[in-house]
Amino acid sequence: MNKTKTFTIPTKAGTDVIDITSEVSKIVSDSKIKSGIACVFVAGSTASISTIEFEPNAVKDLKRALDKIAPENGDYEHHKTWGDDNGCAHVRACFMGPSRSFPFEDKKLILGTWQQIVLLDFDTKNRERKIIVQIVGK
Amino acid sequence: MNKTKTFTIPTKAGTDVIDITSEVSKIVSDSKIKSGIACVFVAGSTASISTIEFEPNAVKDLKRALDKIAPENGDYEHHKTWGDDNGCAHVRACFMGPSRSFPFEDKKLILGTWQQIVLLDFDTKNRERKIIVQIVGK
Amino acid sequence: MNKTKTFTIPTKAGTDVIDITSEVSKIVSDSKIKSGIACVFVAGSTASISTIEFEPNAVKDLKRALDKIAPENGDYEHHKTWGDDNGCAHVRACFMGPSRSFPFEDKKLILGTWQQIVLLDFDTKNRERKIIVQIVGK
Repeated sequence: MNKTKTFTIPTKAGTDVIDITSEVSKIVSDSKIKSGIACVFVAGSTASISTIEFEPNAVKDLKRALDKIAPENGDYEHHKTWGDDNGCAHVRACFMGPSRSFPFEDKKLILGTWQQIVLLDFDTKNRERKIIVQIVGK
Repeated sequence: MNKTKTFTIPTKAGTDVIDITSEVSKIVSDSKIKSGIACVFVAGSTASISTIEFEPNAVKDLKRALDKIAPENGDYEHHKTWGDDNGCAHVRACFMGPSRSFPFEDKKLILGTWQQIVLLDFDTKNRERKIIVQIVGK
Repeated sequence: MNKTKTFTIPTKAGTDVIDITSEVSKIVSDSKIKSGIACVFVAGSTASISTIEFEPNAVKDLKRALDKIAPENGDYEHHKTWGDDNGCAHVRACFMGPSRSFPFEDKKLILGTWQQIVLLDFDTKNRERKIIVQIVGK
């Protein structure tokens, strides 16, 4: 069996980190699939899905680390291609990837106590993001 | 068809990298599912799953790279939240993610010769980690 | 239902980034599975799968960021183990991981407009890479 569900999330310019655990959990518990894999995917080349202990200070630490790899105010070759200003967002998103997969049992995600599922939007303008949750199991 | 199996692994403080290929392979070969996807997931916000050529020197190189992004002895805002000392672990785990998915055929993982599945535990104290292998296929 | 398909891609020494979206899309549309998850996996410990806006300048920016974590001309402990020269490739591949999973519906991948699936081969010599696409759904 499988089930595809989509939801959208408004995001703010800059690296916006948003807890989407409750949305994903609800999709998993509302489906008729008891156990399996939930693939959480964000459409777009400047955003990612991951997990973190979602509290403001850990998010600050994450942003500082991202700035080491791809600084927000750096020079990017990509800016020459289309006149864009979001080169850092493309690099960050490629590193972290567009999807993470999660096991579930009895219609419940198997997460650690402090482990939340987050959307990371690295883009330099406000966006409306489409998240796809694809559930496969039985 | 699907199958959920769990095992635990004791880990040491600091970035502990442990080869779990044999455990995952055994779960795949023992299940009644011939081919499909095995999602290997670690519960917790300070550990990750990935692949590497598992030999001590490559692991040393990996740790050196992780120290560039999130140094073990750095200052972390997260430490102010709960008095924790594992800010580097949260950042590293968010970067590398909690899961990787692997295809298998004839009950065998399709891995490269030098490609091992590893648990990476970034936490600053010894832990007992729960690894979930969720298999979906037929 | 599930389906396993494999294809090979020749790659060049150094960090070679290759758009494989059309190959993966064709496998998804040719299968008898209407919707589900496509796990795209590369066999080998020195390559990864991710997504990026595939245009030469964004790829240049990505390479510059990878050089910060694991420089191509750096010293690596791994080189002492086998006399290899591809330590940077092992570190990069472990960071980015061997697989990404993609949802699909009506036999079509759900990708953003500028989001391409890429093989990243970090190895220091030319290779022939095996990509496995494992599709699970119904």
